[in-house]
Amino acid sequence: MEATDLRRAWAPRFTRRAAGIQGSVIDSSTSLLQRQTHDVIPFAMGSPAPDAIPTEAFEELGRAVLHAGGAGAFGYGPTEGERALRSALLDSLATEGEEVEPDRLLITAGGMQGLDLVCKLFVDAGDLVVAESPTYTNGTATIASYEGNVLEVPVDDDGMEVDALPELVRADGRTPRMIYTIPNYQNPSGTTLSLPRRVRLLELAEEWDAVVLEDDPYRMLHFEGPPPASLRALSGDAARVIAVHTFSKTVAPGLRVGWIVAHAPIVERMIAAKQGMDTCTNVFSQRLVAEFIVRGLLDAHVERLRRSYREKKVAMQSALGRFFGDVEGVSWTDPAGGLFLWLSLPPGSDSTALFPVALEEGVAFIPGSAFSVGGAFRDALRLCFSYPDEERIVEGVRRLRVAFDRTT
Amino acid sequence: MEATDLRRAWAPRFTRRAAGIQGSVIDSSTSLLQRQTHDVIPFAMGSPAPDAIPTEAFEELGRAVLHAGGAGAFGYGPTEGERALRSALLDSLATEGEEVEPDRLLITAGGMQGLDLVCKLFVDAGDLVVAESPTYTNGTATIASYEGNVLEVPVDDDGMEVDALPELVRADGRTPRMIYTIPNYQNPSGTTLSLPRRVRLLELAEEWDAVVLEDDPYRMLHFEGPPPASLRALSGDAARVIAVHTFSKTVAPGLRVGWIVAHAPIVERMIAAKQGMDTCTNVFSQRLVAEFIVRGLLDAHVERLRRSYREKKVAMQSALGRFFGDVEGVSWTDPAGGLFLWLSLPPGSDSTALFPVALEEGVAFIPGSAFSVGGAFRDALRLCFSYPDEERIVEGVRRLRVAFDRTT
Repeated sequence: MEATDLRRAWAPRFTRRAAGIQGSVIDSSTSLLQRQTHDVIPFAMGSPAPDAIPTEAFEELGRAVLHAGGAGAFGYGPTEGERALRSALLDSLATEGEEVEPDRLLITAGGMQGLDLVCKLFVDAGDLVVAESPTYTNGTATIASYEGNVLEVPVDDDGMEVDALPELVRADGRTPRMIYTIPNYQNPSGTTLSLPRRVRLLELAEEWDAVVLEDDPYRMLHFEGPPPASLRALSGDAARVIAVHTFSKTVAPGLRVGWIVAHAPIVERMIAAKQGMDTCTNVFSQRLVAEFIVRGLLDAHVERLRRSYREKKVAMQSALGRFFGDVEGVSWTDPAGGLFLWLSLPPGSDSTALFPVALEEGVAFIPGSAFSVGGAFRDALRLCFSYPDEERIVEGVRRLRVAFDRTT
Repeated sequence: MEATDLRRAWAPRFTRRAAGIQGSVIDSSTSLLQRQTHDVIPFAMGSPAPDAIPTEAFEELGRAVLHAGGAGAFGYGPTEGERALRSALLDSLATEGEEVEPDRLLITAGGMQGLDLVCKLFVDAGDLVVAESPTYTNGTATIASYEGNVLEVPVDDDGMEVDALPELVRADGRTPRMIYTIPNYQNPSGTTLSLPRRVRLLELAEEWDAVVLEDDPYRMLHFEGPPPASLRALSGDAARVIAVHTFSKTVAPGLRVGWIVAHAPIVERMIAAKQGMDTCTNVFSQRLVAEFIVRGLLDAHVERLRRSYREKKVAMQSALGRFFGDVEGVSWTDPAGGLFLWLSLPPGSDSTALFPVALEEGVAFIPGSAFSVGGAFRDALRLCFSYPDEERIVEGVRRLRVAFDRTT
């Protein structure tokens, strides 16, 4: 049977939820870019720079983990996470003034598994989930994989337009089951939810008795001082707020280590769910991250990342000014942290059509429509400034302009 | 609010599927055993022996991976898996006479994620799934987490009693959507599905148009030559047969690396689903396993494991003869491979009540009822012989008898 026939033959056998499972344009770009044989400057994946990954430290730390733990570093670990990482994390949270009880902490396989766990426990088929628009593709994909429906709320310079939310909810007719938000240096827009809006969002969550999924991968990567207090803190640690974090942007994505802070009965149920998902998180990786924290390397490392990414952001903005300053209708955001710029092209532009041309010219990005379940933002795109060095950033933006000219 | 109040308050807010999510007694035992302060001989987790984990090789291989890949060894990887591991695996399958096209292979975070992916795509709420009884707790837990219903089919020395299956299905009234089987050295019974039964099971799957989930973690760990041909091979690689494998038992469980072989359109959909689950599998671990295979270390390692586990099985059986030979109604299985023995106690025994007493005496196992959704097998238990050395195996069985005498 031909592949297309097979696809047709098997489609009806997939589950109902399978229909909602969409591949991630972002994740697929890793594979796509690795297949390119010419030089492509990657503004696509939200990856730390190669020199932002502490490989030399890892070599030393890896040896230490091996010698201390022996075979145990490669055995099964407790589902809730390795003791060493849990206590390192609780200590460092305490240093930041956050006292978290051990039974409120769960180690996950990156932030993505955190999102999956929350949706698994709180999104039933047909539930309404509020989310920023644009927002993280994989977040809404996970909601859709549990047959939830996303209500897209526009974003401005202060993050989600929370004041518009009640009217949007009324128009939908359903009461939201969950609010999914990336409050800091949002992916993909780079915007940060203002303090008054955070407070208002929590009031609305209370009114609707909705769960708040606070997806917070970029909090530590601030350029102008820390962001406003987290929704979790502002809520007085209400049970309804579940915070999902990751070491992917501050230590290394390929280690797949993240964590969740939630109320104990929720964490307890999440542990049970995770046992049916992957048994436990990679043990060696957890111990490596623990060692990185315990030796006091994380703080200095994050401080270096802040400086480096701030400089790269400025370099990208200045290159955008240089190469797109003459194009009417082009604008870009000014993130106060994180990895991403959001570039708006002149109305009527098509970033999906621009993509293959840009790839040919040697630059990659993520088309805007990937960040909307309704396929909005065709005239926008996400640029990640963290990975290439400043020279390559300038060259990448130059190539982008060449591609832009070829398609207009 | 007290924890119990909170649990009550939040229970109605969990999804319907959350009700089906049960923690794994097996996985929880890792955490439980780590908390013990006295000496406990672990017959509980299905873990490789400490000296069966090639830590010394890992140190050398880890260095090689780091030097070859640099930061790339810790970056995001393609969701379908690292190129190095994929090609090492395809090559070694080819050597065994199995030509698998690259688009039919998916690398997963251990075998457990493989089971989760298959259930996500093929189990809808209310679907009937056939499984061995007893069977792997986490397998049926995952089915339940997608609101599938398990039809338990008894096991004898030749594996699932396939001839009894049509009548059991008729009695249920539904047509099975999926057949979940562990054909080789089954967890927990240690039995192997005979060739005629494999053929018959595939006929029934054809008749019912059911998916066959072939969970095959132990295939390579044979003591008396390879097991019968896989269901996938016997089916002529039919689309309905999906094979889930893992390196957890042959290389190291803490690395969380496994793989799936399925038809390309199914793998394509699984890649999309995995992007919403954990983005990609741990990159460093994948490259470590690839290096282990490419350097030709896997085959010799597996051969050592076969010899060692066979000796340990014999040691456990002889200890059982020595310490339980005088107890009427006690019997145990004789696995031709794998990690597990199934011990039947005299009718009316209660292995769940035996557990805490055994733990006190310094030996751990998994109570039989963990392996049945209906809570059968209270008078049986699973013993894993792979982890302790032979002397400790004898001592563990001795302690088990002491505990047994204390409870009868």
